[in-house]
Parts: sequence; structure tokens; C-alpha cells
Amino acid sequence: MLYAVDLLGTFVFALSGAFQANRHGLDFLGFMVLAVATGVGGGMIRDVLLGATPPAALQDEWYLLVCLAGGMAVFWAAPPIARRWNRVLVADAVGLGVFAAMGAARAAAAGLGPIGIVLMAALTATGGGVVRDLLVREVPAVIKGGFYATAALLGGVAFTGTAALGLGEAVAMTTAAVVTTGLRFWAMAHNISLPTGRRFPHLPGDDTGDPA
Amino acid sequence: MLYAVDLLGTFVFALSGAFQANRHGLDFLGFMVLAVATGVGGGMIRDVLLGATPPAALQDEWYLLVCLAGGMAVFWAAPPIARRWNRVLVADAVGLGVFAAMGAARAAAAGLGPIGIVLMAALTATGGGVVRDLLVREVPAVIKGGFYATAALLGGVAFTGTAALGLGEAVAMTTAAVVTTGLRFWAMAHNISLPTGRRFPHLPGDDTGDPA
Amino acid sequence: MLYAVDLLGTFVFALSGAFQANRHGLDFLGFMVLAVATGVGGGMIRDVLLGATPPAALQDEWYLLVCLAGGMAVFWAAPPIARRWNRVLVADAVGLGVFAAMGAARAAAAGLGPIGIVLMAALTATGGGVVRDLLVREVPAVIKGGFYATAALLGGVAFTGTAALGLGEAVAMTTAAVVTTGLRFWAMAHNISLPTGRRFPHLPGDDTGDPA
Repeated sequence: MLYAVDLLGTFVFALSGAFQANRHGLDFLGFMVLAVATGVGGGMIRDVLLGATPPAALQDEWYLLVCLAGGMAVFWAAPPIARRWNRVLVADAVGLGVFAAMGAARAAAAGLGPIGIVLMAALTATGGGVVRDLLVREVPAVIKGGFYATAALLGGVAFTGTAALGLGEAVAMTTAAVVTTGLRFWAMAHNISLPTGRRFPHLPGDDTGDPA
Repeated sequence: MLYAVDLLGTFVFALSGAFQANRHGLDFLGFMVLAVATGVGGGMIRDVLLGATPPAALQDEWYLLVCLAGGMAVFWAAPPIARRWNRVLVADAVGLGVFAAMGAARAAAAGLGPIGIVLMAALTATGGGVVRDLLVREVPAVIKGGFYATAALLGGVAFTGTAALGLGEAVAMTTAAVVTTGLRFWAMAHNISLPTGRRFPHLPGDDTGDPA
Repeated sequence: MLYAVDLLGTFVFALSGAFQANRHGLDFLGFMVLAVATGVGGGMIRDVLLGATPPAALQDEWYLLVCLAGGMAVFWAAPPIARRWNRVLVADAVGLGVFAAMGAARAAAAGLGPIGIVLMAALTATGGGVVRDLLVREVPAVIKGGFYATAALLGGVAFTGTAALGLGEAVAMTTAAVVTTGLRFWAMAHNISLPTGRRFPHLPGDDTGDPA
């Protein structure tokens, strides 16, 4: 059941990667690269950081197959998929919840503390999209605004809270997925976003961190 | 022999990184960074994904030395190298084949299935170029068109096919390298590229994957 | 003591990430993402390459907390921090030295040779800034010019030289940190930078490495 929803989420994320390839006029290979990167990128980054190598997405070939299927679907049938976009968005929100729950569970199993767990929930859910956007030279959608990563972060918080109550991993994962998906639906319905800081364009900052 | 060709491929890839630094007007350090990233980036990403850390390119210092030599060659002698560009292209195609063959062999040794092997062949051969292009804020050449990564992918397919026949790793690697390099020569001679999808610029897609 | 300076460096790097978020008009989440990526990104890349997973920054939650504190400080109080920018620069140079020294020491402990040690010193010190700049689609400051990474590289050289004399890790790390921070102060005072190569804009290079 979890596995089926995880594959569904991977497929929907791959669709999003392939539509990005479409917008940028890439060739067939570009569709496949962005579909794979978006579908399994977040989980791969998580597994590499946690030392679980080779990543699950390389050990079980269904993940890659599902990504390729998503990429081909958009390559050959973009308009009919686009007409059903509301259904894609629902599946995407469900996938987001499952990804966040799995990221949190893997991080907890690797012994990370609460902040690390929350970070891994968000990274699993959004890392693929970040890779997708970087490859076509866009600022990652996830840091530009909206409520997407925030839903995954709060799902991670729900996981740590539930786990701290001693309710077991299955309950914690379910809670995390329901919270993430629910928040995402709520944010889509109400067009919620986070506040931005006041901008101070002339402030320094170029000369640290690695100001060169 | 394999080792010598691998170092040659690394050197030629480093040249390509340094020419990218040249085009962007970077300083000496920028030449070295792009030479190293292009020369050993693909193999490093592969080794990290397969859990073979520290990567081979960090354990055997000849790889880094060869990259630095390539970067310095372009920094101080770009025009004579550019005049011999056809020879560089031949060496690059040979390096591409060796990189694809080694990526496929390492992936097979790590227990990956056929799709994972093909993916690792292409990633080893093209990952360095992707890092190179991202660092100077270009859309990676490999997803913009052409037949470069496709040659490596088909080399990976040749590896899995040969290995499935039980012919042993040495034969499979040779086949993969010959197929990749041969396809690359053929594509350069005939200016081959993959089809692009029809573009639907007003389709959705920004709002999934991590639409933010 | 080393731990305290390491956390200070992480905090200052996080400030730099958050100012980058400010310049790009990102929301609260964007501030946090760039603060975390800049503060712990370099060390995470190093730990992943060396196979020390999960990275130290995920095992000890103080690193992430310090990053979040730095991000929030800039989100709510950018102008007073900017007015004290000279102090931030001093702390940043100290952090740079500590990061370089720790990168060199970890690389040596993992059995890398002298070039690998120097590379890891620079990567630890500048990797976070590279990730920060890539996320907002800027060419990494570190390869655009200046003397920032070069100070860390020379700190790595100082580490390998001192270690080769058999003076022990503590002396080598101290030397590396002092050399890096000292060079950074000197470069800031004299506005030093490396030479750039002559540009040959019409040279080839697009068609290798992964010319696509």
C-alpha cells in the first residue's frame, strides 16, 4: 500500500519534471533526465546523506521505470494530461505526504534528532523539484514562495511529535502524510504563502560565506 | 591500458572545463575548479551514489593532477590547443566510451539492475559536464540536444546486453566503450540529434513536483 | 574551543546565506534554506565524499539550530547586522580558517593524499557558499574572482606541510586555520585577486566534456 502510493508520487513528480522539459523545449533525453531527476532526486539525496547507498531508487528498478513512463507520457501526450491537471494536483499532494513521511521515517531510523528529521522530510519531498529547476536554470520554485515545502516541514514536525508520544512508526508516518497532504490541499484552496522579509537591496553579504 | 585511457579521458574533459572557464572570463582558480569538476565530477557522483567513498578520484591523486594539468594547459596555451580541436574531439569521444564502460561496470558490481547500469554509464560520462555548466549558470549542454549522453546510454545498453550473454566483464566493458565511442563519431560525422517534443508553453506544471 | 569557533563560523556563514535570500526577495522559508545550505553545505558535501554519513551537521543538532538562528536574525534584524558588517567579516575570516582546518583534518583522517587534503580544505570552506549561489542562480562568487577559496587552499597546503613534518594534527590544524584567516585578512586589506586568463571568446569547447 505504502509502496503503491510511493510509486504514484514518483510518477506524478516525474510528470512535473517532464512538463518543465516541455516548457524549455528540450529533446526526448531532456524529458527523461528531468522526469528521473524530479521523481527520484529527493529520495536519492536523502539516501546519500543518510549513508543508505546505493539509494532505494537505484536498487528497485520500478522507481526508474515509473519515472521514464511519466516522462514518455508527457512527451507524447502532454495536452490530455494538462486537461486533467486538477487530478494531477491531487495525486501530487498525496505523493508529497508520502515522500515527507518516508523521509522522516528514514531519518529517524538513521538516528537523527528532531530537526534533522524535519529537514529530511522536506528534502525528500522537495529535493527532486530543486534539482529539476536547477537543471533548467530556474530559481527553485520551492524557495520562491508558496506553501509546498512548508507543508512537508510541518509533516515532519507531526512525525517527531507523534513518535515522541511513543505511538510507533506506522502511526507517526500516517500522521505525517495526512498532515502534509491536508496542509497542501488547504494551502491550494486558500492560496496561502509565507511572509517575505523586507528587502534591503544595498546591504552587504556578497563578501562573506565565500565572497570570493 | 584501461587506466591510461581513463586518465586521458579525464584530461580531455578537464580541457573542456577550462575552456568553459575561459569563455566566462574566470580567474586562475576558476579554471582549476572547472577543470577538476568536469574531469572527475561524473565519477565522483557515481561513486557517492554507489557508496564507494572516498571516490576513486580522491584516492588516486593522478586524477586530480591530470585535471590541474589540463586546466593549466588551457590557462596558458588556449590558442594552440584550439587549433588542434579535431584531435581533442577524438580523444573526448574515446574518453566518453571509457567513462561509460567504467560507470556500467561499477554499477553492475554494486548489484544494480539493467536500468540502473545504463543510468550510471550515462551519469559517469556526462555528470562532470553537467556540474561544469551549472557552475557557470548554463543549462547543461547534455540536456539541450545532440547525441552525447545518448551514445553513453546506448553503451550502457550494450554492456548489459553483453553481460547478460555471460561473456564476462572485460568483454562487456570493451563492447560498451566501442559502442559509445563509435556512436559518438557517427553522430559527429552526421550531426545527429534526438527529436524534441512539441512545445505547449501554456501548459501547467509549475504547480507540482514542488511548485512551492 | 574548536567546537565553539566552528559553531561561530557556521553562524556567520548562515548570515551570509540569509543576506543572499534578502537580496533575492525570498520568503521566510527561503531565508532558512539559504542559511542552512550556506552554514552546513560545505561540511555536508565533504562528509558525503569521505563516506562519513550521516554528516556531522545532521548528527549534532546545534549546527542546524545555529543556522536557523542566523537566518532568523537577518530576517528580522538585517539593518543592525549590516551596520556591524566589519565585525561579521572578521568572524567570517575566522570561520573560514576553522572550516579549512577541519576539512583538511577530516580528509587526512580518511587517508587522502596531499592534493585531496587541499581540495577538501577548500571545499569545506567554500562549498556552502557555492550551494547558496547556485540556489539563487548566481555564478558562485568563489569562482568569479577574489582570494577567498585561495586562502583556504593555501591553508590546506599549510596543513599538509606541517603534517609532513610530523608535528601532529593539532599543530597542523592550528597552522592551517591561522594561515587561512591571516591570508584572508591580508587579501581584504589589500584587495588582492588572482590573474584571469586572456579570453578567447570564439574558441571551441562547447563540443566536448558533454557537448551534447
